[in-house]
Parts: sequence; C-alpha cells; structure tokens
Amino acid sequence: MLGHIARRLGRMQHVSVGLKGVSLQQLLSKETHRHPQSSLETHRSISTVSLWPFSSQPRDFSQPNSSWSPEMRKVYDHYNALSFPDTENGEEKKGPWRKLPSYNRSIKYATGGIHLSKLIQAKARLFTRNVKEQGATFEYVVFVNKEEKRCVCVFQAGHLLEGAPGHVHGGAIATMIDTVTGTLAGFLSGPIMTANLSIDYRSPMPLDSVVLIHSSLDRIERRKTYITCKVTSTDESKLYTEATALFVSIGVGHLFGSRN
Amino acid sequence: MLGHIARRLGRMQHVSVGLKGVSLQQLLSKETHRHPQSSLETHRSISTVSLWPFSSQPRDFSQPNSSWSPEMRKVYDHYNALSFPDTENGEEKKGPWRKLPSYNRSIKYATGGIHLSKLIQAKARLFTRNVKEQGATFEYVVFVNKEEKRCVCVFQAGHLLEGAPGHVHGGAIATMIDTVTGTLAGFLSGPIMTANLSIDYRSPMPLDSVVLIHSSLDRIERRKTYITCKVTSTDESKLYTEATALFVSIGVGHLFGSRN
Repeated sequence: MLGHIARRLGRMQHVSVGLKGVSLQQLLSKETHRHPQSSLETHRSISTVSLWPFSSQPRDFSQPNSSWSPEMRKVYDHYNALSFPDTENGEEKKGPWRKLPSYNRSIKYATGGIHLSKLIQAKARLFTRNVKEQGATFEYVVFVNKEEKRCVCVFQAGHLLEGAPGHVHGGAIATMIDTVTGTLAGFLSGPIMTANLSIDYRSPMPLDSVVLIHSSLDRIERRKTYITCKVTSTDESKLYTEATALFVSIGVGHLFGSRN
Repeated sequence: MLGHIARRLGRMQHVSVGLKGVSLQQLLSKETHRHPQSSLETHRSISTVSLWPFSSQPRDFSQPNSSWSPEMRKVYDHYNALSFPDTENGEEKKGPWRKLPSYNRSIKYATGGIHLSKLIQAKARLFTRNVKEQGATFEYVVFVNKEEKRCVCVFQAGHLLEGAPGHVHGGAIATMIDTVTGTLAGFLSGPIMTANLSIDYRSPMPLDSVVLIHSSLDRIERRKTYITCKVTSTDESKLYTEATALFVSIGVGHLFGSRN
C-alpha cells in the first residue's frame, strides 16, 4: 500500500507527499491538485513545479544499464521505439506508449508518521530502488498506454530476490505487482492508495528472468479503481502470476495530514 | 511463492532444495523426507544431517542486534521467555512457543532454473535478508506455537522499505506476510509453495514501526493449507493489514526436479 500515492504530482513519479503532518502545504495549495482536467493533463500541468530538493535532474533508475540482459534491452528498445518523448508538450509523438521515469526516494519534505525520526527520514529510500548494485534486485521500467488504459513493465529479477533456491521470492513478485498496478491506477485516477492485492502464483520464476508485467484498467467505480495484472515471459507464452488490485482514491487533504 | 519450500528439511529453515536439476538427491533419498511422523518430528529427525556447506553454525539473522528498538526487544523478550530451547530433544521446556532461526540464503547445492548462471547462484541471497546493514530493511523473528497451530512474527520495518513518504511499501508488507504465513504452513504441512495471497491494507504503516504479524491455521484440505494473517501494533490495538494465504503441498520429487 501507499507505494503509489500522488503519482501525478509532477513529472517526477516519486514526488509524493507526507501523509501526516504539514509537509507540502507551504508549496502547493489543495486547489492546485484538484485540477479539473484529465489525469495526464494534470500530470503535465504540475510538472513545471520542481519539488526535487537536490537537483533539477534526479537520476532516473529506469534507464538501461550494463546489468540489463540482451533480452531486457531488446524488450525495452521495442517499447521505447513506440513511445513519444517525455517532454513538456509531447511533440514528435512516435507511438502510443510513454516511458515513466523511476526514482529512488520521496521528497525530503515528507514528514511520515509520528514515530519517524529525522535521521530515518533522511536515509529513507524507495523499497524497489534501495540497493545500489545494478542488477542485484529490481531492474524495471514502466511504459504506459493512455489510450488503452494499460501499462507494461519490463522486469529483470536479480540474485538478491531469492525465495526458494534459484527462484524469485513471492514477496518480490508481489512488490512489483503493487508497483506496476499502482502506477497505472495513479496515472488514471490521481492520488490513490492500495486497498487490496490478490495474487495467484501459477509458476515459479527463476532468478535472472526477464518478464513482462501487464496491467490493465478493469473499471473505476467512484473512488475505487480496479486493475488486473498478468506476469508473463517476454514472448507471453508462459504465465507466471495473475493478480487483481484495488486502489482507493484519496483526497489531497488526506495526503497533507487532514486525516490519519 | 516458493519462499517456503521444504521448511522442515533440517533445523536450518533455509535448507531448501533445487527445484530443477539434480541437487540434493545424492545426499538424501525421497524416502528420508517421506517421514510418517508429524511435521515437527520430521523436522527434528532430519536435523542431524547438516547441509550447510560453509559452517556448522550459520548465522541466525533473527537474533537481537543493536538496531532493534526497545519496543522490538521487549516483545522479543516476552515471547522468548515463553519459548523452549531449540535443542535436539526439547528438554527444559519453558512455554508453548518455539523461536525459529532465519538465514540469508539457500544451500549452494540448489540448481535453480535453466536460466540461472553459476555466478548468480553463488551470489543469491534470501530477499528478506539481502541487505547487510542492520535495521535498514527487515528485522524480524518468528515464534511458532505448535499446539495452537499459529505463529507470531515481531517485525521492525527499516528505512529502506519506503513506499509513500515515511511509510512502509505495500510490497514489503506483502513480503513479510508471505514469509510468515509460509513459515507456518511449512511447519504444519511440510514442503509447500504459495498459491495465493490476498491482502487487505487497512491502515498505513510508518517506517520504523514495530508490529506483530499473527498467522493461524484456518484449515487443511488435502494438499491445500489455508492460513489467515493479521498485522497489528504490538499492543494489538491497531490493525494495519489483514490477509489470507493458500499454500499447496508439493512432493519432494517436485523439489528435486522430477516436475517443472
């Protein structure tokens, strides 16, 4: 849960906000986020407000690196060739896909829970990007298709994700499913939090596998966004995992601490 | 899934076996594992065969360390005082609980999937124990109560498990639920793999929280073991997460590569 709050607050996917306490109210009013346009439009309109406190160009961890296998790189290149640039106004559109960036932490303005010390807050890192060694844990990149209301994640599972010998831990797969379905739900519905994940494990996934995580919108009912998900081999011939996910929209007031 | 295969193969919880390929057949026959006694008895009877290739005393990562908060230590001490020693024959019984050890990898005999290189195999580490820095990720210890067919895990969530700012990632919570429910299912039913996890996230969990993960047997139907799970504050006044888990028993032949 809560891995996917405030997806559209800025181009930086990680720029989410404190759940309790003061946090971003000094920077952005509630009305700024209550944008009447579509999620994607809102996504862009706020992107001009840079909240990254260290640099205007934080590192995007979903760029190719030397740990990527040829299979990982091939699938990435395929979707990247069908993507339009992540620019302010989206000119030079090449295809229906859009690559989303991925960072390794939330903004330093986040206040977190009452039990959270300043020290821990400063050291906090996103769970899926918390190991520096490239290729050791989660290597992934998410492409979203706005028209079709779905996304696909290319995921390479590193050797530190072990469950049974030589195979990926169920919790690591759950983590990626939460991440990818939450990314799509947030992209379509704005600020959300995970309410339910139901995961069927169909087949063991060897370490070092490259898989596709397909997520599609099932339906939106008021505050509830339902997402379906399948994890397959890159040629889609083998099914590893199936899942459904339910996300609940949260008001920006919730994010800024007006409710617990 | 597959985080919990072959729980009872030796006192060392991590001593599980290859899913594909040759692996342990040279060491242990299938009949050795097809023990007609209860799971706990089998657990002990095989414990005399040390499969740890590096040392007779691998490090138990569930021992107290300096990163544990006073709250974590207090709950640990409570259950530890009600536990009997993890000795060969269980003399000096103090109470109904039994502390389970926790290691950071599977045995080197594991063969893993066909895509798994020797290099990756040697570097593989259990997902929940893959970061060396104490207190940074998952600090946990599991106590099991055989008579009541339940277990409780004391879990302290480190700063590298972040989802929303200052809060624990839903995937990290799912990982602990898979780990704890799988530990209980394996303890009661022998070699199993996760078939389904269904998780309801009720309340956000701040980083640095210490929580209890309670798992109880719901029922066993032939090859299926159903476990229920609740994640609460240590005084059990606050409910963070509820879950159900289904595990399917797998034959030892499955583990040794007779089926994919």
